[in-house]
Amino acid sequence: MPLLVVGSVALDSVETPKESRDNVLGGSAVYFSYAASYFTSVRLVGVVGEDWPPEHTDLLNSRQIDTSGLTVVPGEKTFFWKGKYLPNMNDRETLEVQLNVFGDFQPKLPEDFRRCPFLFLANGSPKTQLNVLDQMTGPSLAVADTMDLWIREEHDSLMQLLSRIDGLVLNDSEAKLLTGEENLVLAGHQVREMGPSFVVIKKGEHGAMFFSKHETYVLPAYPTEKVLDPTGAGDSFAGGMMGYLAEQRDFSPTSLKMAMAYGVLTASFTVEDFSLKRLQHIERDEIEIRMQQYRKMLSF
Amino acid sequence: MPLLVVGSVALDSVETPKESRDNVLGGSAVYFSYAASYFTSVRLVGVVGEDWPPEHTDLLNSRQIDTSGLTVVPGEKTFFWKGKYLPNMNDRETLEVQLNVFGDFQPKLPEDFRRCPFLFLANGSPKTQLNVLDQMTGPSLAVADTMDLWIREEHDSLMQLLSRIDGLVLNDSEAKLLTGEENLVLAGHQVREMGPSFVVIKKGEHGAMFFSKHETYVLPAYPTEKVLDPTGAGDSFAGGMMGYLAEQRDFSPTSLKMAMAYGVLTASFTVEDFSLKRLQHIERDEIEIRMQQYRKMLSF
Repeated sequence: MPLLVVGSVALDSVETPKESRDNVLGGSAVYFSYAASYFTSVRLVGVVGEDWPPEHTDLLNSRQIDTSGLTVVPGEKTFFWKGKYLPNMNDRETLEVQLNVFGDFQPKLPEDFRRCPFLFLANGSPKTQLNVLDQMTGPSLAVADTMDLWIREEHDSLMQLLSRIDGLVLNDSEAKLLTGEENLVLAGHQVREMGPSFVVIKKGEHGAMFFSKHETYVLPAYPTEKVLDPTGAGDSFAGGMMGYLAEQRDFSPTSLKMAMAYGVLTASFTVEDFSLKRLQHIERDEIEIRMQQYRKMLSF
Repeated sequence: MPLLVVGSVALDSVETPKESRDNVLGGSAVYFSYAASYFTSVRLVGVVGEDWPPEHTDLLNSRQIDTSGLTVVPGEKTFFWKGKYLPNMNDRETLEVQLNVFGDFQPKLPEDFRRCPFLFLANGSPKTQLNVLDQMTGPSLAVADTMDLWIREEHDSLMQLLSRIDGLVLNDSEAKLLTGEENLVLAGHQVREMGPSFVVIKKGEHGAMFFSKHETYVLPAYPTEKVLDPTGAGDSFAGGMMGYLAEQRDFSPTSLKMAMAYGVLTASFTVEDFSLKRLQHIERDEIEIRMQQYRKMLSF
C-alpha cells in the first residue's frame, strides 16, 4: 500500500570524532522514504532550492520513491544542517541551521497523494503537520514525529495534533520534556493519554520502546560495532516501521511489533556509514538476514 | 551447586528525588547473595563492625545464605556509603564513604568454602580478589566485578585478575574507561581479549550486553514504571545470573543467555523499592511470571 511522507529534505554537513562529510544528502523525509522503500511504494512531499543536485532525486527515484511532490524553488537554497557528534556518538550539537526554503514550507499535496492510506508526518511544525492532515481524505494510519522545539514553542498545536493521529514517534529526552516525567515507562503512557493509540520512544543506541493501551515493551538496538554517523537513524527507524506496516496493510499488535523490529534493523544499517551510503548498498535480503540474527539474539 | 560470594557488606544512606532512607542494609555481597538465593545455596564472605544489626544476618539466614564467613569485628564500624540519585534515577553521586572495617578487609575463606565450584568476586580491590582466588581450589566458574577506581589505580593487578577469571561483569562507563573505546560492542570484545572467556556490560535501565568469542548480544531491561532505588541493581543482576548458572551446574552458551535474562529480571525487582525491601516480598514464582512476560515481550 502506498505510504506518504511529508518532511524535510536537506543538505547536511556532519562531523564525527573520526571523519567528516560536507553537503551530503539528508533530511527526515529522505531518510524515511529511502528506508521505507525496502518495504512499500513511497511518495515524498518536500521542498528544495536550486542548489539541489538532481542526482539526489535520481537516487530516490532509483528506489521507486515518487518525488512528484518534491518542489524545487528557483532562486532559493535547500535546508542546510551542520552538526557535530560527541565521542560517545550518541549526543550531538547543532553547529549551524539554515532553514532557507524549508522555512516557508507550506506543503500542498498533489491530488492523487491525498487518498494515501498510510501517512508519516516527519518532524516539522505541528501547525504544518495539521495542515497536511487537513488535506488528507482519512488515512488508515497517520503517524507523526516531533522534537523539543515544538514541544516548547507550539505546545497547543502539538496537543491538537496528538488528538488526531494514530501514533507518535519521539526520542527519550523529548518524551521526558513533553511529560515532565523521568521514568520512560510512565512517560510513554502519559504521551499516549494525550491522544495517539500508540507511542514509540526511540532511545538511540539503546533501542526503542512501544506503548499502547494494552502493551508495553522494549526492543534493544541491533549491536553494531561500526557506527560512522548516527544522523537519520531515527527517521530510518520510522521508515522501516511504517514501510513494513504499509506492506502488510495491517497494524495489529503483532504487525506493530514486527514493524518495530524492522525499524530497529533498518536504522542499524543507516548508522554504518554517512548519509544514505550504507542503505544504498543493501537489498531487502540483507535486512532479512539481520532479522534472523536479531530473532536469534532475543531467543533463550 | 553452592555459590560463594566475597564482597562488601554495608550500611547505606540513599537519597532519591522523592524519598530517602538512612542506614539501610546494603553492600555488593548482600545484594548479590540475596538475589542468588532464589536459585541456589549461597555462602557469603564479608566483614562488618559491631554496629551491625544482627537482624540483617537473620534476614540473610532466612534465605539459607550461609553467613559463617561473615566476620564481626568488635570496636569497629561497618562500611558506610551515602549516595544521591539525580532525577533520571540512573546517574548518582557519592556523598560520603566510610570504609571503616572494610578498609582492611583481608578475606580468609573458611576451609569448607574453598572448594566451592562457583565463585563471584564482587567489586573490590583486584589485589584482594586475587588473594581470594589463591585460596580457592579450582572453581569451575569464577566471575568478578570491578569499578573505575581499580581500573585507574590498580591497573596491573586488574590485568592479572582478568587473565585468571572466566567472566567479568562491569558497567558501560567502566568498559569504556578500561578500553578507551566508546563503541560498547568493540569495548566488550576488547575486554574479553584481556583474558576472560566472557564479558557482561551492564547498561542500567538499558539492559545488559554479553560478549564471548562466538557471541555478541544485548538484552533490554525489563520495563518497570516503579523505580524507587537503583542501588544494588548491578549486584542483583550478577546474583540472578550466577545463581541460575550454579543451579543449572552448567555454563554453556544456552545456559549463559538464560542466566543473563534471570539477572535482568532479578534486578528489575530490586529497583522497585529501597534496599532489599522488594526482593524480600517475592518468591521464585514471581521471577518466573516475569520471565514469561519478558519472553513474550521479546517474541515477534
